[in-house]
Amino acid sequence: MNEKELIELLAGVKDGSCPIDRAVERLRHWPQEDMEFACLDHQRSLRTGFPEVIYGKNKSGEQIVAIFKQMLKQGSVVMATKVDAAKAAEVGRFVPEVVYKKEAGILVANIPAEKSGRGIIVVLSAGTSDIPVAAEAAVTADALGHQVETVYDVGVAGLHRLLRQRELLEQAAVIIVVAGMEGALPSVVGGLVDKPVIAVPTSIGYGSAFGGLAALLGMLNSCAPGVAVVNIDNGFGAGCMAAAINR
Amino acid sequence: MNEKELIELLAGVKDGSCPIDRAVERLRHWPQEDMEFACLDHQRSLRTGFPEVIYGKNKSGEQIVAIFKQMLKQGSVVMATKVDAAKAAEVGRFVPEVVYKKEAGILVANIPAEKSGRGIIVVLSAGTSDIPVAAEAAVTADALGHQVETVYDVGVAGLHRLLRQRELLEQAAVIIVVAGMEGALPSVVGGLVDKPVIAVPTSIGYGSAFGGLAALLGMLNSCAPGVAVVNIDNGFGAGCMAAAINR
Amino acid sequence: MNEKELIELLAGVKDGSCPIDRAVERLRHWPQEDMEFACLDHQRSLRTGFPEVIYGKNKSGEQIVAIFKQMLKQGSVVMATKVDAAKAAEVGRFVPEVVYKKEAGILVANIPAEKSGRGIIVVLSAGTSDIPVAAEAAVTADALGHQVETVYDVGVAGLHRLLRQRELLEQAAVIIVVAGMEGALPSVVGGLVDKPVIAVPTSIGYGSAFGGLAALLGMLNSCAPGVAVVNIDNGFGAGCMAAAINR
Amino acid sequence: MNEKELIELLAGVKDGSCPIDRAVERLRHWPQEDMEFACLDHQRSLRTGFPEVIYGKNKSGEQIVAIFKQMLKQGSVVMATKVDAAKAAEVGRFVPEVVYKKEAGILVANIPAEKSGRGIIVVLSAGTSDIPVAAEAAVTADALGHQVETVYDVGVAGLHRLLRQRELLEQAAVIIVVAGMEGALPSVVGGLVDKPVIAVPTSIGYGSAFGGLAALLGMLNSCAPGVAVVNIDNGFGAGCMAAAINR
Amino acid sequence: MNEKELIELLAGVKDGSCPIDRAVERLRHWPQEDMEFACLDHQRSLRTGFPEVIYGKNKSGEQIVAIFKQMLKQGSVVMATKVDAAKAAEVGRFVPEVVYKKEAGILVANIPAEKSGRGIIVVLSAGTSDIPVAAEAAVTADALGHQVETVYDVGVAGLHRLLRQRELLEQAAVIIVVAGMEGALPSVVGGLVDKPVIAVPTSIGYGSAFGGLAALLGMLNSCAPGVAVVNIDNGFGAGCMAAAINR
Amino acid sequence: MNEKELIELLAGVKDGSCPIDRAVERLRHWPQEDMEFACLDHQRSLRTGFPEVIYGKNKSGEQIVAIFKQMLKQGSVVMATKVDAAKAAEVGRFVPEVVYKKEAGILVANIPAEKSGRGIIVVLSAGTSDIPVAAEAAVTADALGHQVETVYDVGVAGLHRLLRQRELLEQAAVIIVVAGMEGALPSVVGGLVDKPVIAVPTSIGYGSAFGGLAALLGMLNSCAPGVAVVNIDNGFGAGCMAAAINR
Amino acid sequence: MNEKELIELLAGVKDGSCPIDRAVERLRHWPQEDMEFACLDHQRSLRTGFPEVIYGKNKSGEQIVAIFKQMLKQGSVVMATKVDAAKAAEVGRFVPEVVYKKEAGILVANIPAEKSGRGIIVVLSAGTSDIPVAAEAAVTADALGHQVETVYDVGVAGLHRLLRQRELLEQAAVIIVVAGMEGALPSVVGGLVDKPVIAVPTSIGYGSAFGGLAALLGMLNSCAPGVAVVNIDNGFGAGCMAAAINR
Amino acid sequence: MNEKELIELLAGVKDGSCPIDRAVERLRHWPQEDMEFACLDHQRSLRTGFPEVIYGKNKSGEQIVAIFKQMLKQGSVVMATKVDAAKAAEVGRFVPEVVYKKEAGILVANIPAEKSGRGIIVVLSAGTSDIPVAAEAAVTADALGHQVETVYDVGVAGLHRLLRQRELLEQAAVIIVVAGMEGALPSVVGGLVDKPVIAVPTSIGYGSAFGGLAALLGMLNSCAPGVAVVNIDNGFGAGCMAAAINR
Repeated sequence: MNEKELIELLAGVKDGSCPIDRAVERLRHWPQEDMEFACLDHQRSLRTGFPEVIYGKNKSGEQIVAIFKQMLKQGSVVMATKVDAAKAAEVGRFVPEVVYKKEAGILVANIPAEKSGRGIIVVLSAGTSDIPVAAEAAVTADALGHQVETVYDVGVAGLHRLLRQRELLEQAAVIIVVAGMEGALPSVVGGLVDKPVIAVPTSIGYGSAFGGLAALLGMLNSCAPGVAVVNIDNGFGAGCMAAAINR
Repeated sequence: MNEKELIELLAGVKDGSCPIDRAVERLRHWPQEDMEFACLDHQRSLRTGFPEVIYGKNKSGEQIVAIFKQMLKQGSVVMATKVDAAKAAEVGRFVPEVVYKKEAGILVANIPAEKSGRGIIVVLSAGTSDIPVAAEAAVTADALGHQVETVYDVGVAGLHRLLRQRELLEQAAVIIVVAGMEGALPSVVGGLVDKPVIAVPTSIGYGSAFGGLAALLGMLNSCAPGVAVVNIDNGFGAGCMAAAINR
Repeated sequence: MNEKELIELLAGVKDGSCPIDRAVERLRHWPQEDMEFACLDHQRSLRTGFPEVIYGKNKSGEQIVAIFKQMLKQGSVVMATKVDAAKAAEVGRFVPEVVYKKEAGILVANIPAEKSGRGIIVVLSAGTSDIPVAAEAAVTADALGHQVETVYDVGVAGLHRLLRQRELLEQAAVIIVVAGMEGALPSVVGGLVDKPVIAVPTSIGYGSAFGGLAALLGMLNSCAPGVAVVNIDNGFGAGCMAAAINR
Repeated sequence: MNEKELIELLAGVKDGSCPIDRAVERLRHWPQEDMEFACLDHQRSLRTGFPEVIYGKNKSGEQIVAIFKQMLKQGSVVMATKVDAAKAAEVGRFVPEVVYKKEAGILVANIPAEKSGRGIIVVLSAGTSDIPVAAEAAVTADALGHQVETVYDVGVAGLHRLLRQRELLEQAAVIIVVAGMEGALPSVVGGLVDKPVIAVPTSIGYGSAFGGLAALLGMLNSCAPGVAVVNIDNGFGAGCMAAAINR
Repeated sequence: MNEKELIELLAGVKDGSCPIDRAVERLRHWPQEDMEFACLDHQRSLRTGFPEVIYGKNKSGEQIVAIFKQMLKQGSVVMATKVDAAKAAEVGRFVPEVVYKKEAGILVANIPAEKSGRGIIVVLSAGTSDIPVAAEAAVTADALGHQVETVYDVGVAGLHRLLRQRELLEQAAVIIVVAGMEGALPSVVGGLVDKPVIAVPTSIGYGSAFGGLAALLGMLNSCAPGVAVVNIDNGFGAGCMAAAINR
Repeated sequence: MNEKELIELLAGVKDGSCPIDRAVERLRHWPQEDMEFACLDHQRSLRTGFPEVIYGKNKSGEQIVAIFKQMLKQGSVVMATKVDAAKAAEVGRFVPEVVYKKEAGILVANIPAEKSGRGIIVVLSAGTSDIPVAAEAAVTADALGHQVETVYDVGVAGLHRLLRQRELLEQAAVIIVVAGMEGALPSVVGGLVDKPVIAVPTSIGYGSAFGGLAALLGMLNSCAPGVAVVNIDNGFGAGCMAAAINR
Repeated sequence: MNEKELIELLAGVKDGSCPIDRAVERLRHWPQEDMEFACLDHQRSLRTGFPEVIYGKNKSGEQIVAIFKQMLKQGSVVMATKVDAAKAAEVGRFVPEVVYKKEAGILVANIPAEKSGRGIIVVLSAGTSDIPVAAEAAVTADALGHQVETVYDVGVAGLHRLLRQRELLEQAAVIIVVAGMEGALPSVVGGLVDKPVIAVPTSIGYGSAFGGLAALLGMLNSCAPGVAVVNIDNGFGAGCMAAAINR
Repeated sequence: MNEKELIELLAGVKDGSCPIDRAVERLRHWPQEDMEFACLDHQRSLRTGFPEVIYGKNKSGEQIVAIFKQMLKQGSVVMATKVDAAKAAEVGRFVPEVVYKKEAGILVANIPAEKSGRGIIVVLSAGTSDIPVAAEAAVTADALGHQVETVYDVGVAGLHRLLRQRELLEQAAVIIVVAGMEGALPSVVGGLVDKPVIAVPTSIGYGSAFGGLAALLGMLNSCAPGVAVVNIDNGFGAGCMAAAINR
């Protein structure tokens, strides 16, 4: 029940067309409804950009098809993350309007053509193995209606590759930095520019990389200010955070 | 060497007042100088807001006094974090223009009176024990020239306290959420609003809180989108990130 | 040897029909026998509800069939947990009275139709991926003879979904809360009602979820009173604890 | 605003004494108010037993005195945990009605003389070093209005000491088991009786006890059903959980 | 009640001097009593060597004095571990028969002069900093009535020092090997001789020694057969294990 | 070169049949040779029982066959651990004298029929899932020439099953206790008897069992004296340690 | 732009053939270019030995073929690590000049026949299971143009095998020591010779080896000076470090 | 017994002046003696540079004085690490020839004035707080007779500071890089030059720095080749490794 409906209800009370006890009944659960309403409202604002995201990893192709079909009725952007090629092909057979971003492992439909937001979201990756996570971040931000630039393979062991991108970095509104192994890239980027840096550790590495723990701890302890971190391999989360900042 | 100086140098080469080998000599180390220059330039732009921060924990009062005196000459804001009351008093005797924000453990001078930025930075803390970290974030953002609102003690075990603040949350440009123990507050806040949420785990708790590890992991695994995390107890880092976003 | 048998033995000693050395012999191992007896007795009382549970994960279908057949002779409820569909089908071919609860991965026979206990056991899950563990808890409590209500997908990132269930929560005698990722739901539930809350972390999540560690630590450090925790993915244990409380 | 007030408001709308826009205004924030109201209501029911607990560790004696004075005005039970003897003496000078439970490190006032609840709460400790945590649990449950029995020093390396308490265990409604080192006692107790067992790991031990981690993991992996675990050294939490169960 | 007493009881039943119900009463709690008896019996056999040990760390001098006085009445060996020099002096003033083994931090009385056991217990330490733990092991085994030889400072970085002790190692019945840092000594010793080796990691080291974790893991993963490990710094436990083997 | 050969060499020097420089040459590397000799000697004494063990996990059937064939030439016992049924069958086709102990995953030949040693080695397991590790320990000790008794499924959640075995425990020279999950069984056994207890944690369990870490830490922190621990799932190591003790 | 080009540019400015603004334009980005140039220069010097290495694990055979073909055009050595036999065969079909070092899992082309460097690089492995990592180190150093000697299976549980290699160790310029399980070998080697020792932990082991963590911690805490450590299983890194030292 | 003495012994055997059995006796323990001799010989070669180092942390001033006095008799360099100012002053009173390097916490005597070695050892530190560890490395290498250059405060968040040092880095024979927090500096340095880089993590940082663990893992996972790591805060070890490389 929104404000207009509330006024109508009260008008009905006033003119007698709605008995008081019926009004009480409708208002009794307003808190929850309103809470829900508020959240829905909040979600609606989200929904103009993006309704809800399907975490595709543990779902069958069949399940993804079902959710896609239901969500596409609402006409808004729909997205499923962590979808492998086989599952994507299966979904594609039944939901032809879906596009598969292979590098990112994302199935998406209704990406907004118009981009909005304060500026460019730049996505950097340290190594070529980090690209899937970086692509997940980039496709997410793109699907949320933002302009995205990606630069891959600019790790700290070859600084000149990064330094060559300084102009682009200066233009960014937000920078997403994706790195595995020691995860040092966000510190270096954070020391070069005064933009908000979202650091994404990846599980790339072996031995004492401990599935991304080394990169995660490195990023959390960055000596550069203006760096915040999301979960290991969480390109999607980084894309959302960047979109929230760039709105 | 900036562009104007470069043109003058080249003009000197052209008119013969500067021999080519002298020009080569001056240009030889330009990369580094320029790099330095670029960084300084970058730092200068930072410096209009904030020059450099003294990590006060491992420094003696005497050392802090010395750094403060040197930095104050530059007329910009100067700040030392993690300073206890005794050290603050010692510094205050020698650097009278310094203000001590006791709750935040921060010594600061030349806070800009004019606030700038896109909007309000809201700082929430889950418990009363988290206030020092929250205050560190708030004072940092304030010293960096941003408008800050703080709301303390709105942890998830009493949701109504948080829900009462929904209007303020809707007005925020960025929200810093500080919590120890299970660190659940950022997830709840991130589920209520579509603002960027900077989550700060604190070392408050005991036993399996493991010095903030429980809160840190909780925040990294937040099921709400638009949440990024800084180091345990790193109120300063959260304030910097918020300032970078709000610029 | 129970008290009646002891009296008979002593009577035999008194009337000479049982020589003292034979009595000594029979009494010598009484402690162990009695201990065993006591335990059996205790187990018997358990058995009226539930005899023993087969942990199905590491057992072959053949082994499960054998145990089921032996235990079904006793006429009481029999249950095997962590059984996948293939194994369940195999067992079903040989033990037709068994029912397979697919969602919960549980094979069960002789579930008591009559429900007893102080009240309703409510099982909540934060996400759809947590449902198998939640279902394991629910089926366990059901098989132990308790009335169970389940509400799935009420995670903290959409509080309104939980708040809509407040009435049900108020009716519960015990609440089992199943959540992965940051595991924040038990804190929120524990802050809403004054019922005992059994928190079950799940291994759902990735990266720094560390196989459920994040959720586990979050739940152990819950800021809400009246919350206790079982092992990661241990829906069965939560169901047993709830049954013990609700007896 | 409760239902009666709502009806009055609507009656005012009906009879024109309350203009619609004023009604809208009052109803606009109803959700939050109601939420708050609901929570307060919930808290009120809690408050009949127990209002709020002061975590005394990081608070000065002065701060504790202030909170005690404010809370005692409400006439209900007031309690501060983790208070050492010196701080307790300081508080006692200013708040004479307070009692100091030295073993438990708890300051408490207005403990209800009448005990209620379903049955006895039994508190066991494995070693003498675990007694402070066990006492914290016992005093908490006592202050919450429950009947408590304590048996200390019944660790698994001398089983006969525990077995001698079987009769008491059978009488319990809930059993709190406190143990450090390997934390094996809850498994043994959980195997002897079919009561809900709340396991409390303590930080007693050294080396690979890792501050209670060994006991915590041991308890979480208990092979006995009907065992749930609270945080390391969290006697207070165990007391609350036991009270919630015993209500 | 031992066997003789049981026979007397049964004789009383037989001759009528003991009514059956009185016999039942006495026998009713036999299990527990017997359990206790059994345990006491077991403890008695222990007691001929050693009654019980006081863990001195968390106890005041006053408390240690009290326990010593009570235990010395039984005439057997009495021992308190982890006692510092100040506490030892305090105890010494009140319990003059006590001896303080400063290196081992052990207070002990009534050490048996006669040594028994299968052979010599050899205690090796890798570094000089490991000596307190090694001494704790040595004094414990000595107090338990075994012949002990100690060789300190024979770490693996100077193999010749160890190799010089080969003759002694060959004579040992058990070898206790105490080492911190990387904890490699037990592997080398275990590769030289076919005696049971008890490895004791110590908390000596810094950084990634993690309080003895490195040594502990090293010893648990020893490539030499015939090595078993006790807790970090647990010289006492190693002494007990050696005594149990050497009995 | 043994002592006899040394005397012959010196005699050759004395009678001139061996020039001094040839003697120097032969003696130059004596240390190493002797070292090797000593070690071989040591190994030879081992070899009377057992020569060397093949860790079968990472080896192909072909490789195992080759090693077996070579080692069987020496006529002594030969053993390969962690061999699955398929590999065992493959080896069996080429090495007919080999016996496969399926439960233990051990291939063995030439087990000594005569048993020696001080007494019986008793192997206990807490659960049925722990049996493979327990069997590995038992077969190892048996192959090393010791008398072994096994009792499986006597976990602490049903104490009476263990207590029934007290007589056997009293007869043991060494007790190996195998347990997963919380690993509490060694503490209880260590509290019942004064025999050396070798505790073997297993990787049985899930969630916070962390692959045997919970059991390992529990056993290392055992409150019972006379307990030492080997690596997770290291039944072979426990068997070797028991054999070393029982020699 | 190198110095010669700079002088030409300045000469152009001087003689007017290059207008100042064009010179400014070319010089504006000099830092980055120069940085890149410097790095390239640095890489060029590297390239004389070795251009870049393909981490083969996550790459398809097709991808490796493509990179090999491109890199082989430059005529220098090319190498891919962590390549299994199937992938190697696939690459071999398309890139015939490639050699597959099976033991090391390395594909390599253009290994320099001439060896350079200060001395021999000796590679030791503790066990046979550590050989793949040791071989990776050896092949890497060989491909980088150094003389390499390998000695496998000289673990600390049979010291004589190591001691027999003392002469070789004395001749080494650098020693790479590869060991899993407890990782004790580098300490022993470091105590025998005063050469730089590069320790390589391997993931060989099980249970509390925790994927190489035990070996890693052991090596980091080595009591021998002159030992430094690379990542778990990082034979390639050890080979590079040895080459850098031996240059 | 060296070779000359062996020849004399054999000559004595030959000419009858030494009976065979006396020769056997003297030769019987040769292995050990020789081992010791070999090691001593090895140590002697070490000793020309450096005899042995006193780990000063756990030693009293008195103990350090005693060791210094004994070692100074040998005329070689003597060094004690981790010595605070108070202890240093105490030692200085009794051993006047000792010099205290305050920044490094090292007491040293007889530093060789002549420097030897292949080249310069460069020591870099990332932050000012890392200086004590860096200084420990520098003083150690200096005391071992090497030429050392130190550059402090060149962390990755201000790359230009490091880049300015490129010339010095190119001149180095070895580079020691000391860094806390995220420990990214070694990767950047390793990417700039092809010198062996010894990375030293420090315990500087807080929260998820976990006492240096973040820096340690970062360095172990460095994406730059030619980097090896020593223990957290182990400046001494890095100095030794650098000296071993530079010899």
